[in-house]
Amino acid sequence: MAYFANVEKVAYEGVQSKNPYAFKFYNPSQIVAGKTMEEHLRFGMAYWHTLVAGGSDPFGVETASRPWGSYTGMDLAKARVEGLFELMDKLSMPYFCFHDVDIAPEGDSLREFYNNIDTIVDMIEQHMKQTGKKLLWNTANMFSNPRFMHGAASTCNADVYAHAAAQIKKGLEVGKRLGAENYVFWGGREGYETLLNTDYALEQDNMGRMFHMAVDYAKEIGFDAQFLIEPKPKEPTKHQYDFDAATAISFLKKYDLTDHFKLNLEANHATLAGHTFQHELRVARTEGMLGSLDANQGDMLIGWDTDEFPVDLYAATTTMYEVLQNGGLGRGGINFDAKVRRPSFTPEDLVIAHVAGMDTFAKGLTTAARLLEDRVFEDFIDQRYSSFREGVGADVVSGKATLSSLAEYALNNEQPRQNESGREELLKATLNQYLVTE
Amino acid sequence: MAYFANVEKVAYEGVQSKNPYAFKFYNPSQIVAGKTMEEHLRFGMAYWHTLVAGGSDPFGVETASRPWGSYTGMDLAKARVEGLFELMDKLSMPYFCFHDVDIAPEGDSLREFYNNIDTIVDMIEQHMKQTGKKLLWNTANMFSNPRFMHGAASTCNADVYAHAAAQIKKGLEVGKRLGAENYVFWGGREGYETLLNTDYALEQDNMGRMFHMAVDYAKEIGFDAQFLIEPKPKEPTKHQYDFDAATAISFLKKYDLTDHFKLNLEANHATLAGHTFQHELRVARTEGMLGSLDANQGDMLIGWDTDEFPVDLYAATTTMYEVLQNGGLGRGGINFDAKVRRPSFTPEDLVIAHVAGMDTFAKGLTTAARLLEDRVFEDFIDQRYSSFREGVGADVVSGKATLSSLAEYALNNEQPRQNESGREELLKATLNQYLVTE
Amino acid sequence: MAYFANVEKVAYEGVQSKNPYAFKFYNPSQIVAGKTMEEHLRFGMAYWHTLVAGGSDPFGVETASRPWGSYTGMDLAKARVEGLFELMDKLSMPYFCFHDVDIAPEGDSLREFYNNIDTIVDMIEQHMKQTGKKLLWNTANMFSNPRFMHGAASTCNADVYAHAAAQIKKGLEVGKRLGAENYVFWGGREGYETLLNTDYALEQDNMGRMFHMAVDYAKEIGFDAQFLIEPKPKEPTKHQYDFDAATAISFLKKYDLTDHFKLNLEANHATLAGHTFQHELRVARTEGMLGSLDANQGDMLIGWDTDEFPVDLYAATTTMYEVLQNGGLGRGGINFDAKVRRPSFTPEDLVIAHVAGMDTFAKGLTTAARLLEDRVFEDFIDQRYSSFREGVGADVVSGKATLSSLAEYALNNEQPRQNESGREELLKATLNQYLVTE
Amino acid sequence: MAYFANVEKVAYEGVQSKNPYAFKFYNPSQIVAGKTMEEHLRFGMAYWHTLVAGGSDPFGVETASRPWGSYTGMDLAKARVEGLFELMDKLSMPYFCFHDVDIAPEGDSLREFYNNIDTIVDMIEQHMKQTGKKLLWNTANMFSNPRFMHGAASTCNADVYAHAAAQIKKGLEVGKRLGAENYVFWGGREGYETLLNTDYALEQDNMGRMFHMAVDYAKEIGFDAQFLIEPKPKEPTKHQYDFDAATAISFLKKYDLTDHFKLNLEANHATLAGHTFQHELRVARTEGMLGSLDANQGDMLIGWDTDEFPVDLYAATTTMYEVLQNGGLGRGGINFDAKVRRPSFTPEDLVIAHVAGMDTFAKGLTTAARLLEDRVFEDFIDQRYSSFREGVGADVVSGKATLSSLAEYALNNEQPRQNESGREELLKATLNQYLVTE
Repeated sequence: MAYFANVEKVAYEGVQSKNPYAFKFYNPSQIVAGKTMEEHLRFGMAYWHTLVAGGSDPFGVETASRPWGSYTGMDLAKARVEGLFELMDKLSMPYFCFHDVDIAPEGDSLREFYNNIDTIVDMIEQHMKQTGKKLLWNTANMFSNPRFMHGAASTCNADVYAHAAAQIKKGLEVGKRLGAENYVFWGGREGYETLLNTDYALEQDNMGRMFHMAVDYAKEIGFDAQFLIEPKPKEPTKHQYDFDAATAISFLKKYDLTDHFKLNLEANHATLAGHTFQHELRVARTEGMLGSLDANQGDMLIGWDTDEFPVDLYAATTTMYEVLQNGGLGRGGINFDAKVRRPSFTPEDLVIAHVAGMDTFAKGLTTAARLLEDRVFEDFIDQRYSSFREGVGADVVSGKATLSSLAEYALNNEQPRQNESGREELLKATLNQYLVTE
Repeated sequence: MAYFANVEKVAYEGVQSKNPYAFKFYNPSQIVAGKTMEEHLRFGMAYWHTLVAGGSDPFGVETASRPWGSYTGMDLAKARVEGLFELMDKLSMPYFCFHDVDIAPEGDSLREFYNNIDTIVDMIEQHMKQTGKKLLWNTANMFSNPRFMHGAASTCNADVYAHAAAQIKKGLEVGKRLGAENYVFWGGREGYETLLNTDYALEQDNMGRMFHMAVDYAKEIGFDAQFLIEPKPKEPTKHQYDFDAATAISFLKKYDLTDHFKLNLEANHATLAGHTFQHELRVARTEGMLGSLDANQGDMLIGWDTDEFPVDLYAATTTMYEVLQNGGLGRGGINFDAKVRRPSFTPEDLVIAHVAGMDTFAKGLTTAARLLEDRVFEDFIDQRYSSFREGVGADVVSGKATLSSLAEYALNNEQPRQNESGREELLKATLNQYLVTE
Repeated sequence: MAYFANVEKVAYEGVQSKNPYAFKFYNPSQIVAGKTMEEHLRFGMAYWHTLVAGGSDPFGVETASRPWGSYTGMDLAKARVEGLFELMDKLSMPYFCFHDVDIAPEGDSLREFYNNIDTIVDMIEQHMKQTGKKLLWNTANMFSNPRFMHGAASTCNADVYAHAAAQIKKGLEVGKRLGAENYVFWGGREGYETLLNTDYALEQDNMGRMFHMAVDYAKEIGFDAQFLIEPKPKEPTKHQYDFDAATAISFLKKYDLTDHFKLNLEANHATLAGHTFQHELRVARTEGMLGSLDANQGDMLIGWDTDEFPVDLYAATTTMYEVLQNGGLGRGGINFDAKVRRPSFTPEDLVIAHVAGMDTFAKGLTTAARLLEDRVFEDFIDQRYSSFREGVGADVVSGKATLSSLAEYALNNEQPRQNESGREELLKATLNQYLVTE
Repeated sequence: MAYFANVEKVAYEGVQSKNPYAFKFYNPSQIVAGKTMEEHLRFGMAYWHTLVAGGSDPFGVETASRPWGSYTGMDLAKARVEGLFELMDKLSMPYFCFHDVDIAPEGDSLREFYNNIDTIVDMIEQHMKQTGKKLLWNTANMFSNPRFMHGAASTCNADVYAHAAAQIKKGLEVGKRLGAENYVFWGGREGYETLLNTDYALEQDNMGRMFHMAVDYAKEIGFDAQFLIEPKPKEPTKHQYDFDAATAISFLKKYDLTDHFKLNLEANHATLAGHTFQHELRVARTEGMLGSLDANQGDMLIGWDTDEFPVDLYAATTTMYEVLQNGGLGRGGINFDAKVRRPSFTPEDLVIAHVAGMDTFAKGLTTAARLLEDRVFEDFIDQRYSSFREGVGADVVSGKATLSSLAEYALNNEQPRQNESGREELLKATLNQYLVTE
């Protein structure tokens, strides 16, 4: 089968090219800061948005025209696998990610769901062998089915909790079989609609218990993927427990799970929580918890998850700046958890949108690398905090200072060190200059 | 002196009274759920808003007409003390709260500031003895002075850090002398304007160090107040480190400070962070970290801290519901961190606004107590989560369950327990019914 | 058929009743301010939410259990008509509202859609005759079908524009046949996703043209309903042209349509646009453009249209205050454009939620009427603006003043009239007192 | 006097220069789309932010170090004039803008204020003659003084209204004398804090009356500047009447003022109202109401007016795209209504920030000009709407179509024209490519 037969394999043609199906900035083998772009960026394709979703929204049905649109049931599931690998090949995309329900229909029973998954996983495994494509992460969708209306690991219904556990168990087995580098937990229904009917403490505890069971089972079957929690503040649930990076880290500390989990951070989730994406990355990397990225962007005037393909060069640059500072993402990658706009309904738009996103990150990477190479911000910061490397400042950092010693110093310090300008405008203008030049 | 000579002591007259200077709901000695209203509510007056602030905003100068308005310098500081105790008396307000700079002018040196503080603290101490009024908490203002433009405990300037330490040291000594029940840290400048110039990790570490020094010094001088952190997501700083309850708790865990700190939660700060106040209270009490409250309300269509006097009966009811569930606030209280609107510029508005706020909390208290007495939400919740008290649910809670045992159960559970309605509309309508009846 | 056989007709039992299926405040025949509650409130049932919607959201499929759930196609359409009239009867709801696609399936062609509509309209007409229920308004859904992905009256595709015109034409005919009091236009897809691909001026002009065609056709067929535009700022479209009341009025002025249109205002749309609902009502009534209401409420911490059943007594009171000040809504009414929460999935929740909403508005009505009767705000306002009824103020209002005369006055007015307090806290506390008493 | 003696006149050195005090993109004499950059951009300096403001915020006092900082009263006013012209010269800034209170102290009476203004205007006039610098616009500050707590043209106090009129009268006279190209009205206190105490209709009417008096007086004295209203949704007032472009245009239509007024649009005000700046520009230019720009930017995660110097290249490009499409700004210009961040407190930051802003707009201009020259969006749009230039679409545009003719067409149109993709991702990626290349 060839769903995208009319699309050439996307080649790097550079920014002067007018070909919309060509990379302008992304050149997989180009060396940046000692590694190839491909090694830095570890792009992943999101099964749900690219193979499954169809452009519906709360006020309108699907618009998407997809080459596998005429199939149903398991035939559709299989056609999507073909589509996935073909599109990954065309885009030179090395990784992919999926929920269990993305790849196989749930059928009428859990047993049937397991069987459907096995059939499709066989097929995926074969394709992986043939193509060398890899699974960045998989996960269990525990939010779409009506059974999860009250939550999954935080449900009020023990039978639903058991069903969620069964999906996770299968997910871990699939992950092991396909060599997943990570396994993700996104709790779309873990939270509450109203505190008036919610046993918050029990729900939190039960979530902690589920995560521990997952850790135990992964160990039992020898699945060594990195576990990831993906924070989101709201939507679909009014308040979600993994609100943001700090909240998720606090939760992991409470339940003694920090050795087993890192974070999968998403740009649009960050802004819905009132943070820049860079902030979330900084929080996570400072705590050693930066795992992987869901690349997309929200609209800052819109209060829901628009999951747009990332085209903001500022965000891409500051994101890659944090990633480079982190020494890369380890087993993580950059998954395009992004969907084409509802009116961008053609198969070609899928290709164009991924090219746009990959190019944006490539440009962000090279810009960030140049900023770091020139120590644009680093030298400024070093100078700015230099007072903590000597005298009373050094005493603070070394732990020698006390309130009394500092107060004594302050009382007798008649010419205190003046503040210096933070130079925010200068730094931002400098970022602009790096952005628009090679 | 008598600044409010034309205002009678505010008396409980009940809701039928048309007297704007009378309590309609707050009756200090009325018994609710086994304690007097006064014992439940532990109201505090905020020195800064009520004695100091004058109604300025970023686009306009002060409007307030205050009876002590003709004084300056230390005379003004003394006049405000008189005003405080007179107003507390008129309002039957048992507690007050202040920043160091609220009570005394900073003068030209730290030494002069210390001296000014001592003079005023002498005066306050005398008034406290005479009146029985108490200090709910004090704190150091480390955000208004230009020296703190880059932060206090998170400054890039070690001399500024030392100055902050000196203010905290004095604050702890004043707190001990006046028998403060708590000591508060609100980090208005602890955060960043832009990550481009910020050493986030060092700033966090330095904050942790400052808190430990404060704990050590309090121990050294035998000051046993509860330490409180007050979260706020932004304003004045673009991003503040103590974003919300969960973030502050995560920070305290990281720096091993949870034994020494609880949270002082503010309603308007909660909504600026994207949470209901009830959410913040629930998070804190579930972690045993609920310390004290700053009572006010924001405007939900406004993106800055409006610090309005609390008049929303829904918020007051759910707040008191959480407080009652917490078994009260311990050493904490309900501090009116609220200011009259700029056009409510007369001294009478100060009285009216406090009456409005106290009445709102009184009505919230009685409503919450009746809801709890009737177990309106508790019985519903008990039933809702009952599946976790038997069978597979009980195995989850006891820690006996594993992914395998749960998956086995799910595979063989052909008639899973159906979900039941969350009944949100019913619960909210019931809350309305309790609200509008006695 | 009897879908709600287990539900008694809802009766007024008053607030002491614990029966969740009973009105606590709404008593249709109770006289308030000279009219019955029923005459004041003119409640309408929203076909789409109550008969059609199933609790899906962008992350989950339908949860609703509906008594007509086993039907499909035209059988389902007919079953819903039965359900509508039964539920209206149980709730003593006098009006209903629908989109064309709510009542009949679109089929495979416009012609088939027309035929399906005719069949169902026959059935509805018969029920209306038998029951005396009335059509508050109908409208055409020009946003769900993929053809409207780029807009309907603002589409870039002339064939789609023609299709929209055909739906409106049929809608006007149906409205005339069923005696609709109003005809509504909500432009869910009238707007843009990005200005980069949008001919804004042409789209606006084409919308104006469509409205004029509708006015002409209604005149041609003798359909004398009030035309209504329903503003909404965004969702599903990123920016919608009828952003808020002021924007819609400006549009109607530009295209000379103010004689033919008023506004259908929705609470949740108001808050999404950054306004209180009271603000939108005030804007509309001041311009003589207040037509009808969509009653619901949003969550102020959520950035999308949650369409919750209205249970906020403050909002209901200020809404009814504006309605009473407007002398009622004329041909308009109060349509519950509200949906039960996804976890409130049972048929009983439909009944409970409408009871909750109707009760909320009933309590809002009686509270507003008492505030007006006592002239609580009116007397304050009269006094506040009294300076414009005499002297220089009267000259301003009469048009006699000029900049020169006023400057002359100001220069020579050595003792200008002092401002008086706005007393916002007092007025809000007074509103509370009215709310919690009879 | 020479306040910025250590700053060289800023010269164009291009993006490779590391000199922070050099233009990288702005070259006044460079030809773009047939005109010089200077002619296109008509930059203005904002007196209030650059000469007057000191970096205070609601939680902190001023931080700014200014070379005229040691003066007070009229000496300070005069020193600022010197500073203005020196800084304009250094920056090659052709225009400036001021409020009455920016240039002269109010003194103790209106008469004294008039006198102070006259003294400073003499001085400004002389400097203008010597330097060729021009006044883009002036305005009256009717929001900072406590007298305006309830509004100015919308006050409840007729004496305050008269005082506002006197300020406007003087402002018009000053504008005429200095040859102002525009005269601006920004109504920071025109709005309401709560509708509970507000006579909305009277306030709107009184605003309309004031504007008419201003039009009449300008005519009387032969002042032919363009009048401008500057919309803002909120802050300092909770709800401001000139909410956004559409609302202001609706107001001007209602009071028959559209012949005399255009809009002065500000970027940060747009985003506070929930719009992109491009949206506001598009609305205004489509109605022929685009007058002038206040250039700055807000932080999209912050809910108040941060008035940052504009450094976002996307916003600058789309802004200049609209300006070029409008055929320029006529008598308007680009006023930097922007302030350095509080920690950017040195005089050098003033220079750097203006350089950053001017560079950003210069790069936006050249990018927009290249996009237009290549008809990147125009050709796409032409094709997209082509169906309205023929057949049934042309009938719609010409006014020939009716609902009946369109319905007839739709019923018989068995192969309707398919929608085509909106290609949003492609267009945005193309914009990126133009941005990062010359």
